[in-house]
Amino acid sequence: MNYSVIRYIIGRVLCYEAAFMILPCITAVVYQEKSGWSFVISAILCLLAGTLLGRKRPKKPDFYMREGYVAVALTWFAMSIMGALPFLFSGAITNPIDALFETVSGFTTTGASILTDVEVVPKCVLFWRSFTHWIGGMGVLVFLLSFLHVQGSGAFMNLMRAESPGPSVSKLRPTIQSTAKTLYIIYFVMTIVEVVFLLAGGMPLFDTLTITFGSAGTGGFGIKNDSMASYSVYCQVVVTVFIILFGVNFNAYYLILRKKFRQAFSIEEIRWYLAIIAVSTVVIAVMVRDMYSGFGEAFQQSAFQVASIITTTGYATTDFNLWPQVPRTILIMLMLVGSCAGSTGGGFKVSRLVILVKTIRKELHTLLHPRSVRKLKMDGHVLEHEVVRSINVFLIAYVLIFAFSILLIAFDNLDMTTNFSAVATTLNNVGPGLEKVGPTGNFSIFSNFSTFVLTMDMLIGRLEIYPILLLFTRDTWKRH
Amino acid sequence: MNYSVIRYIIGRVLCYEAAFMILPCITAVVYQEKSGWSFVISAILCLLAGTLLGRKRPKKPDFYMREGYVAVALTWFAMSIMGALPFLFSGAITNPIDALFETVSGFTTTGASILTDVEVVPKCVLFWRSFTHWIGGMGVLVFLLSFLHVQGSGAFMNLMRAESPGPSVSKLRPTIQSTAKTLYIIYFVMTIVEVVFLLAGGMPLFDTLTITFGSAGTGGFGIKNDSMASYSVYCQVVVTVFIILFGVNFNAYYLILRKKFRQAFSIEEIRWYLAIIAVSTVVIAVMVRDMYSGFGEAFQQSAFQVASIITTTGYATTDFNLWPQVPRTILIMLMLVGSCAGSTGGGFKVSRLVILVKTIRKELHTLLHPRSVRKLKMDGHVLEHEVVRSINVFLIAYVLIFAFSILLIAFDNLDMTTNFSAVATTLNNVGPGLEKVGPTGNFSIFSNFSTFVLTMDMLIGRLEIYPILLLFTRDTWKRH
Repeated sequence: MNYSVIRYIIGRVLCYEAAFMILPCITAVVYQEKSGWSFVISAILCLLAGTLLGRKRPKKPDFYMREGYVAVALTWFAMSIMGALPFLFSGAITNPIDALFETVSGFTTTGASILTDVEVVPKCVLFWRSFTHWIGGMGVLVFLLSFLHVQGSGAFMNLMRAESPGPSVSKLRPTIQSTAKTLYIIYFVMTIVEVVFLLAGGMPLFDTLTITFGSAGTGGFGIKNDSMASYSVYCQVVVTVFIILFGVNFNAYYLILRKKFRQAFSIEEIRWYLAIIAVSTVVIAVMVRDMYSGFGEAFQQSAFQVASIITTTGYATTDFNLWPQVPRTILIMLMLVGSCAGSTGGGFKVSRLVILVKTIRKELHTLLHPRSVRKLKMDGHVLEHEVVRSINVFLIAYVLIFAFSILLIAFDNLDMTTNFSAVATTLNNVGPGLEKVGPTGNFSIFSNFSTFVLTMDMLIGRLEIYPILLLFTRDTWKRH
Repeated sequence: MNYSVIRYIIGRVLCYEAAFMILPCITAVVYQEKSGWSFVISAILCLLAGTLLGRKRPKKPDFYMREGYVAVALTWFAMSIMGALPFLFSGAITNPIDALFETVSGFTTTGASILTDVEVVPKCVLFWRSFTHWIGGMGVLVFLLSFLHVQGSGAFMNLMRAESPGPSVSKLRPTIQSTAKTLYIIYFVMTIVEVVFLLAGGMPLFDTLTITFGSAGTGGFGIKNDSMASYSVYCQVVVTVFIILFGVNFNAYYLILRKKFRQAFSIEEIRWYLAIIAVSTVVIAVMVRDMYSGFGEAFQQSAFQVASIITTTGYATTDFNLWPQVPRTILIMLMLVGSCAGSTGGGFKVSRLVILVKTIRKELHTLLHPRSVRKLKMDGHVLEHEVVRSINVFLIAYVLIFAFSILLIAFDNLDMTTNFSAVATTLNNVGPGLEKVGPTGNFSIFSNFSTFVLTMDMLIGRLEIYPILLLFTRDTWKRH
């Protein structure tokens, strides 16, 4: 294992994190909050640790898959621990385990919170909380490397593969580093466009920024206790549209920028993604019609909740815990499905689901025609055997981790629906669940042990299982 | 599609079913019940339909996988419909959908019931109800063919593959027909031994027979409203031991008969199966200790429930709905795991789980050493790629059918735990679930639509997905 390069990467990321903490400091100055000092201290500590670790350039440039996974996992741990400091220093959260949960929930763009009353929390802390969503949305290591050119492109590939969501990044391989840069620029521009649209709707600047961070990263931390219920219908609709856009595979925007419109609009995953949103919205709207003033409002509320859940954002404009069982069940399923690969959203990813469905069709065909050879295709291309196999294994690991987590948190003796949806919502980086962790509840009900388990689930979900699993595999640490 | 041979097979099976109905007739004579007439009429109808369909021997002997799957699926439908007649004729169940549910629950050895009070049901009907477990336990088509030699061994393989539970039957290939005969003899002998043990404990003959049928087939229909709670500890322990034995891969017994002891005791699946039972029993016993007179009783109760659930039998001696969340969660997990392949039990099967865990380990190894080639092994043999792939696809189909069923029955607006465990318990052929379908509840709360969905789930679970899925695939019915 090339420890020096991993140490170096963690150091550089922490320096960046220190820089990011300047923004909440500015917020504190604007609102004249004393809590601003907690960010100054945290930033200094972060910079100190970062400089110490990133002082020396690594001697050996060796950087393989193994280093990529370990670097990603450890960096996310380090940056979550440092990111939790301001919560503790400001006194907004007193329990370190809870502070870590909240920070991991931010960086992984989950949006699950242990705060029972966010409205009493200082504005600079709320700003940092939402800003972590934006930082975590597109991944930090890839960001670092795409703008810095620290290592060769081999290292870049391995890091990107370990950090990016979705089954494969092979399509963008040739010019991957410049592509990544373009993706970040798209992310940045879309964020600004959303800010403009929300400001135009009369939303205050502070609210606009935090909510845009939360929707761009598909995170979902709110700054009000009722999440987004008290905002105007215009603002709710703007957020609905933007979270759907941020849940789309960013390859599509890249292709549009390159004027490859036909290719962009024929991406199978996006078609399925939009179809699922449309069908779910209509079905739910019909079923909850009587709970709202008319079909129009029911449709708008349904669309917001469906978009918020499938993109794993987690904002709410209504308490869907009160909805009938079918809409509730649909929402749980959408949580599991998640958004597109290559978006800022979490979950199992639509493309994986589509490939799995195609696998079943192929199996049935093989049973009927044992001698036939049929290849799985996606977007007109034959899927490599490797990709299909790795998705299968992903499902297996996903199901087993899901079951094991439910068992572990059952020790708190809460009801099955709460446990099931708490794991579903953290492992898929959604935010709210059902029953006691529904849109009006929160995660403070769990014991320290369960909070830690759910924190790990958020990291496992965001980094798509393998980096964290490998961290606990003996083989990873063996000398070779 | 070779329709004539499928028609012939269904016909022969129905003739056998008519013969099986003689036993409840005898029961009716013994207890002087008028309901016996409903069996006489049903048997005549069954014989009539059977003779009509099986009249002509098929001209073409062509029998491929396709014919195998379709024959198995249609035969199970036909025999369930005919088997439901006595329930309707006797008036024990008035709704045809419910009668079909109860019969399918019997043949698939599920043991989920829509009857709210079994103690008022005539004894001959109860006898038939439990006897369906015994008939369904080892599979009817394989039974028919292993004793009749209707078709060539190619047909036999295809039928056995479609009807037998578990990932592969390849090991027994060379002398498969005579092996199957031996397995049935083992099944028969073990049944008789259990009868003797229970009679020795002072259990009445009628109770002994029905409960033995239920435990041999790992079904779980009781003849008392409290299932098995009112029987002596001795009888409960005997049943615990026998359901564990019936959940073991029958290959082990076959090997023991052939005096291949070392091979028999080194079957990995059985080691895992027994280890899971032991660990779960101890953990649960510790956690529910305070609810019983001492650790001894807690252990015995825990062992019974664990054995009953993992083998997917479904008898209960205590209301585990009242247990804390961890034991309840463990039971739900055991439901999903199920028993060994090649046993009479249902569920996902221990061997599949073991192979999936090994697959993850292999994937982690491949991530660390991308160029290494490592093969999956089971019982010392390399697993064929085909087997691993088909298990992966099985998991995918299983998860999707699970999710889709939960969505469909959510229309009844019952709580999530009830819905989740109702699907888990039917798809895995267990019997009782949690909450409203727990050991003291039953399935009469569901609408006709949901009852039908759950009936299909039982068949999908028993026949391991593909036969039923293929029935609804257009390609199956195309001319080739």
